[in-house]
Amino acid sequence: MKPTSLAEARKRLSDLERSLNAYSYAMSQISFAGETQDPKNAAEDRGEALTCLDTLHHQTLCADSTKELLDSLEGYKDELTDMEKAELFVLKRMYTQSSCIPAEEAGAFALLTCQATEVWHQAKKDNDWDAFAPYLDKIVATMVKFAGYKDSSRHPYDVWLDEFEPGTSRAFYDSFFNQVKATIVPLVHQIAEKGWQPDTDCISGTFDHDRQMELAVRVAEAEGLNMDALVVRESAHPFTDSVSSNNAFVTTHIFEDNVMSNVYSMLHEGGHALYEQGVNPAYNYTCLRGGTSMGMHEAQSRFFENIVGRSEAYSYPLLQLMKEIYPEQFSSVEPHEFYLANNKAIPSLIRTEADELTYTLHIIIRYEIEQALFAGTITAKDVPVLWKKLYKDYLGVDVPDDSQGALQDIHWAGGDLGYFPTYALGSAFGAQFLDAMKREGIEVDDLMADGNLEPIRDWLEERIWKYGRSKDATELMRIACGQDFDASYFCDYLKEKFIGIYQL
Amino acid sequence: MKPTSLAEARKRLSDLERSLNAYSYAMSQISFAGETQDPKNAAEDRGEALTCLDTLHHQTLCADSTKELLDSLEGYKDELTDMEKAELFVLKRMYTQSSCIPAEEAGAFALLTCQATEVWHQAKKDNDWDAFAPYLDKIVATMVKFAGYKDSSRHPYDVWLDEFEPGTSRAFYDSFFNQVKATIVPLVHQIAEKGWQPDTDCISGTFDHDRQMELAVRVAEAEGLNMDALVVRESAHPFTDSVSSNNAFVTTHIFEDNVMSNVYSMLHEGGHALYEQGVNPAYNYTCLRGGTSMGMHEAQSRFFENIVGRSEAYSYPLLQLMKEIYPEQFSSVEPHEFYLANNKAIPSLIRTEADELTYTLHIIIRYEIEQALFAGTITAKDVPVLWKKLYKDYLGVDVPDDSQGALQDIHWAGGDLGYFPTYALGSAFGAQFLDAMKREGIEVDDLMADGNLEPIRDWLEERIWKYGRSKDATELMRIACGQDFDASYFCDYLKEKFIGIYQL
Repeated sequence: MKPTSLAEARKRLSDLERSLNAYSYAMSQISFAGETQDPKNAAEDRGEALTCLDTLHHQTLCADSTKELLDSLEGYKDELTDMEKAELFVLKRMYTQSSCIPAEEAGAFALLTCQATEVWHQAKKDNDWDAFAPYLDKIVATMVKFAGYKDSSRHPYDVWLDEFEPGTSRAFYDSFFNQVKATIVPLVHQIAEKGWQPDTDCISGTFDHDRQMELAVRVAEAEGLNMDALVVRESAHPFTDSVSSNNAFVTTHIFEDNVMSNVYSMLHEGGHALYEQGVNPAYNYTCLRGGTSMGMHEAQSRFFENIVGRSEAYSYPLLQLMKEIYPEQFSSVEPHEFYLANNKAIPSLIRTEADELTYTLHIIIRYEIEQALFAGTITAKDVPVLWKKLYKDYLGVDVPDDSQGALQDIHWAGGDLGYFPTYALGSAFGAQFLDAMKREGIEVDDLMADGNLEPIRDWLEERIWKYGRSKDATELMRIACGQDFDASYFCDYLKEKFIGIYQL
Repeated sequence: MKPTSLAEARKRLSDLERSLNAYSYAMSQISFAGETQDPKNAAEDRGEALTCLDTLHHQTLCADSTKELLDSLEGYKDELTDMEKAELFVLKRMYTQSSCIPAEEAGAFALLTCQATEVWHQAKKDNDWDAFAPYLDKIVATMVKFAGYKDSSRHPYDVWLDEFEPGTSRAFYDSFFNQVKATIVPLVHQIAEKGWQPDTDCISGTFDHDRQMELAVRVAEAEGLNMDALVVRESAHPFTDSVSSNNAFVTTHIFEDNVMSNVYSMLHEGGHALYEQGVNPAYNYTCLRGGTSMGMHEAQSRFFENIVGRSEAYSYPLLQLMKEIYPEQFSSVEPHEFYLANNKAIPSLIRTEADELTYTLHIIIRYEIEQALFAGTITAKDVPVLWKKLYKDYLGVDVPDDSQGALQDIHWAGGDLGYFPTYALGSAFGAQFLDAMKREGIEVDDLMADGNLEPIRDWLEERIWKYGRSKDATELMRIACGQDFDASYFCDYLKEKFIGIYQL
């Protein structure tokens, strides 16, 4: 039944959002336990609970009563507050994206991606692309069909790019990536020709687990996280999640032979968590809670990991912290030496281990392959050959096998085609923030050298974080930088930084 | 709409139970995080999520469709499996207990107990019974009203006793407690007259936190818990919860100056967790999962804490474990000395710190006060005077103030009148199990002295644990012991044990 008054519609809006929030809260907490503490035997029952909660979330979101409520609120639009208008906009988008897929087909796709993920795990172990390929073809075919349900007037890959990052498309990414390729590929070749690489001895050694966990917390504190609203734990792969602005989770992974991996994981995940903590608390329990998009989220994490964490300026306080916790290992290390060691840029096979310079090329390769799959110019069986060719062309590396090639990422098995580009977009957003901060007179380098990140955080909070999901990334870029996204900032940033480091 | 076939009814039964299970799973996981790891600022948002999930659970359970389903299954009764019959029985009880309270009144009561709990926290700090008393009166009045909704043909306190522990009533507990009082009160007086107490020097000392956490895990292993289905953490007050037979949580609390508190907390909570782990895994995701009642749960925890953990026989392997972990402190301790130190029985003010002998008297005092409140022979303002009188009469102690008296427990503030007696019942069930095991030829003392608890666990699993909630405690007592509950076993057990220790 349609609400009969604005008051009733408001009450129902609040009830709906509170229910959706409770489901999300529960799924986040259960998943976090799964990654950090659940006993070995818990997996199946956890999966059952998560599946059931996800179904309940979906049923609630896609119920007829939701449609009635949204239509009713549309009718009251002039009387709604700005926040309510934003809630209506976001909820409508969520409703449309979910409800347009028939429940049975959505269920079948969930099952398919579940099976594909299992097959992928084994295929990666066995270096067996052929085992996985039929699943990828089915996943692409289903995603093409679903894209038709969502918006038959657009190219299917555009539909998915836009779903993962509102406002993007092939045209958008083509332009972005062509500019980046034109900058990075020559830089990578110049570095290879030069033949010199920074010495990493100063950050090498063995660092015991317990002291590294202490270090992880100290890094988070130095980054400026609210420790009364944060849980720090360990997991197989670092990640961040949150259930409200008052409760974010970050994890790190401790490698005793790689202490800087812990530091940069924490700076990265801490950036995500700062964003979640910085959202207007009034948005808790509503659909406006949390970061607005994957790209904007990645912008925060990579800003703190790379633009801050791998800057020459921040090398001073970061090295100071290392000296406090590991006086023996770091006492004689110089900041410039530390800075160089943390910025070694060398083409590699594995995306997640790539440096700041070459990372985007890994993304571009995946983007080009996804585009070819959606266009139908290749099918899954053709992927490894194209993968190897692109790694050779862009990064100059030979891919020895598919386990270290096209089978390295879990994303395609999960049906997340269109998702990779958001990783690259985040880095590029960050470089544009840096420029805007400087133009506004924020002495970013001096502040970082002093370890005082507060004015930087304040800038991001005021222009990005506080808005939560109430504004899309494209609008936030205009608010934050006074202009649309422009990849030149990222290209200029990389050029200046790596020409300096490698004296090109 | 009523299901139109047995197949449809079965599908709907499964869907309903899976949803209810998912809500419970989520609430348990969120609460566990709250007790063990959530950041300081998370409390309000956690409360919001829990309230919302509880409401969704209640709405799902009490929906018209649930009633239709239950009626339909009733019609198919002859065709149901035994498991389905049990599910129907348990679900009907859950439905009846929840749906008979009008939603608004249930909400108002939840709010009242929430406020009362806040007031109680402050009142306990301030030693201010008068601040709390009006809330207790309102809680009792509401519970009397609700009891009328549930079963107007019975005395209100009987209704609540039966809700917390099916099959019990005032008549049942009066008989049980009179027998226990007649045994314990004279024993307590004899011990006091004798004037001797065991020396506890051998278990005193300072024991650092990290080694105590290692000890906690070792105790759980020794008790026989499946460590692949268990999480061990710390919290302010030890507790156990579980989300399936494959995932139980136990917590302990570390006092560096009281290592045995950790050991006995772990044995106690481990007993609860053994029960949860031992339920037939086929009951996961159904309403038959988990322990059948509070009393039967407490029977398991107190069995392992006291009947096993504080036995002379088990003192051998337990002391051996202490010697392994703390060789310096325990190397010269003798088992008998250790046994005596762990069984010091001395009347005290605080229920949760009471020894095995006097614990039940603390419960009886609360039971008699609750009975008087429900009978209307006293109101809340009269409680402290009666409390002090009963502590003097039964335990011989003078209660100096209400913070250490009638304000010590959180239960009344939460509306849990009728709950305390289940604690005592559990201990008494356990003594009857011990007798039944021995009658069946299980050499309990020899096994415990060898640290081999497997045959004891097997006995409990086969007769109690595996049934989950498919049978009530009264029926389980008959299955396990071949007879109804009989308090004599508990009285005889206590007499024999404490006459021995105190040489009375």
